[in-house]
Amino acid sequence: MAIGNRQSIITLLTDFGTQDYFVGAMKGVILSINAGACIVDISNEIPAQDIRAAAFNLLASYQSFPAATIHVAVVDPGVGSSRRPILISCADQFFVGPDNGIFSWVCQREQAYRAFHLTNDKFFRQPVSATFHGRDIFAPVAAALSQGVPPEELGVPLGDLIQLESIKPVTIDKGVIEARIIHIDRFGNCVTSLTPEYLSGSARLMINDHEISSFREFFADTANEQGEIFCYVGSAGFIEIAARNAPAAEVLSARCEQTVMLHGPARK
Amino acid sequence: MAIGNRQSIITLLTDFGTQDYFVGAMKGVILSINAGACIVDISNEIPAQDIRAAAFNLLASYQSFPAATIHVAVVDPGVGSSRRPILISCADQFFVGPDNGIFSWVCQREQAYRAFHLTNDKFFRQPVSATFHGRDIFAPVAAALSQGVPPEELGVPLGDLIQLESIKPVTIDKGVIEARIIHIDRFGNCVTSLTPEYLSGSARLMINDHEISSFREFFADTANEQGEIFCYVGSAGFIEIAARNAPAAEVLSARCEQTVMLHGPARK
Amino acid sequence: MAIGNRQSIITLLTDFGTQDYFVGAMKGVILSINAGACIVDISNEIPAQDIRAAAFNLLASYQSFPAATIHVAVVDPGVGSSRRPILISCADQFFVGPDNGIFSWVCQREQAYRAFHLTNDKFFRQPVSATFHGRDIFAPVAAALSQGVPPEELGVPLGDLIQLESIKPVTIDKGVIEARIIHIDRFGNCVTSLTPEYLSGSARLMINDHEISSFREFFADTANEQGEIFCYVGSAGFIEIAARNAPAAEVLSARCEQTVMLHGPARK
Repeated sequence: MAIGNRQSIITLLTDFGTQDYFVGAMKGVILSINAGACIVDISNEIPAQDIRAAAFNLLASYQSFPAATIHVAVVDPGVGSSRRPILISCADQFFVGPDNGIFSWVCQREQAYRAFHLTNDKFFRQPVSATFHGRDIFAPVAAALSQGVPPEELGVPLGDLIQLESIKPVTIDKGVIEARIIHIDRFGNCVTSLTPEYLSGSARLMINDHEISSFREFFADTANEQGEIFCYVGSAGFIEIAARNAPAAEVLSARCEQTVMLHGPARK
Repeated sequence: MAIGNRQSIITLLTDFGTQDYFVGAMKGVILSINAGACIVDISNEIPAQDIRAAAFNLLASYQSFPAATIHVAVVDPGVGSSRRPILISCADQFFVGPDNGIFSWVCQREQAYRAFHLTNDKFFRQPVSATFHGRDIFAPVAAALSQGVPPEELGVPLGDLIQLESIKPVTIDKGVIEARIIHIDRFGNCVTSLTPEYLSGSARLMINDHEISSFREFFADTANEQGEIFCYVGSAGFIEIAARNAPAAEVLSARCEQTVMLHGPARK
Repeated sequence: MAIGNRQSIITLLTDFGTQDYFVGAMKGVILSINAGACIVDISNEIPAQDIRAAAFNLLASYQSFPAATIHVAVVDPGVGSSRRPILISCADQFFVGPDNGIFSWVCQREQAYRAFHLTNDKFFRQPVSATFHGRDIFAPVAAALSQGVPPEELGVPLGDLIQLESIKPVTIDKGVIEARIIHIDRFGNCVTSLTPEYLSGSARLMINDHEISSFREFFADTANEQGEIFCYVGSAGFIEIAARNAPAAEVLSARCEQTVMLHGPARK
């Protein structure tokens, strides 16, 4: 793993928005420590305090980045409280942020990971404010990591992590699988927790009294009619529900976290 | 043309928005291939599926970038269908994206260009999803280009391209020229397809029963009164219509693509 | 001060939004001149023509950047008029933009600064448009600076600058200090012009008939009840007013620029 190189990648994933100076300040702190860091925004428009939305976006994108990438994720309603600042080493990458479950879906998928409680304030920006650990703890720790400081020097090993509920679908009955909506994107497409291997040719998806049995390969499929609801394998690797030229979430009155049921001779 | 250098510029112009992980994933893919790429967002807030808005923004900005810049433009309602992924070499720069007219206004202005159908899937990210060619085809192809892979290795020459309707104004009658609104910016200014050489001292612009004969040099011109409608040469090189301290599009009930007529002793 | 190095940082702070090509064009111009520049967005979503919002965001973030950083701030209602393009050398950093007060709060805090009127059009992009000095004057001048061109070569010394009203709180009476709201962030938190040294244990803040005497260390303080109004030291170094899980600005009907009064045995 090539850490400490001139052009380390540090990604940012926050709910800070782009109207205020918050993200700019984090970048300034990183570049003050490692002028050669390559900073990439995954998103700074996560809905305020929506830890799940951040967890999903990270899950959907970390595999697009090279080894040694450092992901800084700051959706942090507990900033300033006793919630722990953490570092996770996983999938040949690093994850830096609050211990509130934001990394738990990545850890759940990867299984193997090491976690650290960031306790060495030598690597923090001083004085540490009580409201902006993105700038004062997570950004400088990420910059130190990008310079090759080993995790062991930044904190102490941590056994237990705060976990979001699992996104693994549950087999309820023979041929019935319970899953849920884990994300709704800006086009109104509903991302389910189902992966393609759960599907068989005659599967039906039930959501809010709607039954969906149409599985398409892509949006522009000419067989689709205006407003038709259909499923497809989305770019994050999950089954998504879309409506032709309409926001599916609205058509289905779907909400994030709600249940979807898969019926029929599913494969798993 | 200095391609393959350490700090190749790759621009992004998409309708992916900044709330989801889409743009971040594209950047991760690019940096996985060329860690030294310099990625610049032109805009990721193009209205969903608005190919013309992307075409305009590209037309208005590509000349601000140096030779060898690679522009990746992904407004792609036909993703996954038979629409072709293309590469255009033009104006000492490269343009990568779907064959849906998104590059046609640049090609129309420059006249000389070479087009390629991106057929060599050796340079794609595998597996190629049916819904996210920005990440799986256009980003990795742009990264390969930035490393010096020649267009001929990425695909095959292409003769015909999908074209948007021309933005060249049409002379209807002696002294009457038909043009149209090609863009409305966030301030409500209306960008017409007229360039300054069409204007003469006594020209009048007609739009939705409004006649505009006031031509100003800049916004803060003290001669303007609140709400007054006036024209000026906009920063994209086209005649724009603005209202003093008000959104002109609203005052004029103007829409994108609608007609404007230029009357009077125009020069062309 | 390490100017002219390969990886000079140039920040952007504008009201151009991210939907149009404006910010992309500025970056293209900068990279055309200095391909090694590291460009960081502080924000491009400053409300249109809101010079104070830009001034606040710059004040809140410039100290997070390293020496030699070049800040380009373009909220510029007077573009094209006689308002002067300026460069300020201050706090081991540079500030480039219009002379409309946008830099005055930084100058007020730092006291020591040198100002220049940017008169050398050799460093401008030609032709200079009347509407987009961000691209045609400020971006290329910043790029020249980042290459080591000294301020003296870019313009002539300037004695007087346009100033925004001071943000220094005023002692009205013994134990009564008048301050004001200088910013409202996206969460509805109200940033006052008060700094922590004005506070004492028994101080009370008055705003629109609300009296606030609760001072907290951080948001998640469990003593706070839903909707409770409290103060804390914000990340920009000013006293801020927040409501627990609600936008304080709405709860208090607070507006930017309005007065807040500090009563009680304040320390200053």
